[in-house]
Amino acid sequence: MPEKVLIYSKFPKALMVRIGQRFELLDAAGKPPLEVFAKEELSSVRAMITAGGTQLPGSVMDTLPSLRAIICYGTGYDGVDLVAAKERNIAVGNSPGANAASVADLAVTLMLAATRRILPADEFVRNGNWAAGKPSPLLRALSGNPGRRIGVYGMGEIGRKIAGRVAAFETEVGYFSRTRYDLPYRYFESLEALSEWCGVLMIAVRAGAETHRVVDANILQKLGSEGYVVNISRGSVIDEAALIAALQNNTIAGAGLDVFEKEPHPPGALTAFPNVVLTPHIGGHTQDAHAAMQDCVVANLDAFFAGQPLAYPVR
Amino acid sequence: MPEKVLIYSKFPKALMVRIGQRFELLDAAGKPPLEVFAKEELSSVRAMITAGGTQLPGSVMDTLPSLRAIICYGTGYDGVDLVAAKERNIAVGNSPGANAASVADLAVTLMLAATRRILPADEFVRNGNWAAGKPSPLLRALSGNPGRRIGVYGMGEIGRKIAGRVAAFETEVGYFSRTRYDLPYRYFESLEALSEWCGVLMIAVRAGAETHRVVDANILQKLGSEGYVVNISRGSVIDEAALIAALQNNTIAGAGLDVFEKEPHPPGALTAFPNVVLTPHIGGHTQDAHAAMQDCVVANLDAFFAGQPLAYPVR
Repeated sequence: MPEKVLIYSKFPKALMVRIGQRFELLDAAGKPPLEVFAKEELSSVRAMITAGGTQLPGSVMDTLPSLRAIICYGTGYDGVDLVAAKERNIAVGNSPGANAASVADLAVTLMLAATRRILPADEFVRNGNWAAGKPSPLLRALSGNPGRRIGVYGMGEIGRKIAGRVAAFETEVGYFSRTRYDLPYRYFESLEALSEWCGVLMIAVRAGAETHRVVDANILQKLGSEGYVVNISRGSVIDEAALIAALQNNTIAGAGLDVFEKEPHPPGALTAFPNVVLTPHIGGHTQDAHAAMQDCVVANLDAFFAGQPLAYPVR
Repeated sequence: MPEKVLIYSKFPKALMVRIGQRFELLDAAGKPPLEVFAKEELSSVRAMITAGGTQLPGSVMDTLPSLRAIICYGTGYDGVDLVAAKERNIAVGNSPGANAASVADLAVTLMLAATRRILPADEFVRNGNWAAGKPSPLLRALSGNPGRRIGVYGMGEIGRKIAGRVAAFETEVGYFSRTRYDLPYRYFESLEALSEWCGVLMIAVRAGAETHRVVDANILQKLGSEGYVVNISRGSVIDEAALIAALQNNTIAGAGLDVFEKEPHPPGALTAFPNVVLTPHIGGHTQDAHAAMQDCVVANLDAFFAGQPLAYPVR
């Protein structure tokens, strides 16, 4: 008989097909488990799957008295209260690096699309203004990539893949992260110094208390009026109100955002800017990335139910 | 006294500011020169600036009896009747490689934007469908880049820069060109074989009689239903009617197009496809590329008026 696994976050059903072939899934679909399932049923649940960005406090863990494994679908685990999990002797696992290429690809896509004004350019063709010979102030010539300074904030798997990709566009690459690595990119001692130097800030840092709204008005000011910010990490890393003000005042030149502080509710003000590219948190949303993340989830659950340590534990 | 130079194509005035500081410009702005200037004035014109894609037949050259130099702004010269120029002892120059990085960057931008559905993704956020929890069939998970086979058609300066950039995305790169080079990419003996192999066809070949509409229904069929075509070369290389049919029938998965057979009049049918990214011939449209192209134009004109061979002659 297959083991029971609770699905805590709201996931498209297609993503759980493979996992459902191996385990009996109780799909709470983003609601508090007790609202969807009987207390008795939940009492025997030993493992759950969650999206790392979904808030999972100790109070929810307490509704699942047998819970011993929280498996994050994806790289992030910022929504999981790790201290509460530890206190309750619950192991936490994730899918490290499984979506790194997919997320890095989207980061570079957002950078290129924003800096080359792809959305206004496509609109200019489709609405007939090109054919009509109307001028388009949005499409004036801007800086190209050769020599552009790209600052990567965070040098985990995703940051490294971003750096390798953007370097191929004849750019200069710098980075800031807590640790300095043996990498062929210029290291900066602080986010402030990196932002002062670079023309595009690529946010690839892990979300958490330390990085909460660290990309603030001061950092955006340092990026400057020719500068761009791209975020594929978590919305919480940017002070969204400061970002909106910076876009309104032309303090920066544009942005590419796949993540927002409250998803799926990005601030309405952002949707007014033609120099911004907005995507609905699709960084890890490719067939390859989903397959790799599902591999990690299955490996974690198999190990757990076999009484072994998780295959990919969060440390 | 500055030398007179005729501007034959319609260029934004901003692009001619630097050149205008050095030469006396007669701007025909895309009209037949005789419609704009007196015959006597044209009779002393010895050099002209044109866009390589603009048709420039011998009959126009004959309205400029002193013409001895045709300088193309940009890499292309497909609109210039080279035989007619040679017969009239007119040298033809261009700006080889000056916009290669800018054009290659746009090619990769179009590929990434089309394969990751950036336009529908941005629209999904802006129109509120993400917030409303509406499903978006356009945003289902698609193939990612790692392992994707990219076929580069044409291996000049632009093709090489495209290849180097896309390789950084963990793709496999193949190419077809008349010449086989010592490059770390797989060589194919024909466009057909390349299209059979690859998932994205990047068109970077020089336009001309040999390449007129060579990307036809057969080639698109070989690309297949998961395949994409990206064109930053000239619209004439693709059979546009066949491309529209292939998009209508899902023979291919999408396209990214910066160039069209009749510019600025892309077929209306193209604007109906959400899986297509359309840009108004902005491949070489960055500050860096314009500066480099203007350098070439000035170097060509300086050499010509000094009685020397062109700095960058078309061979």
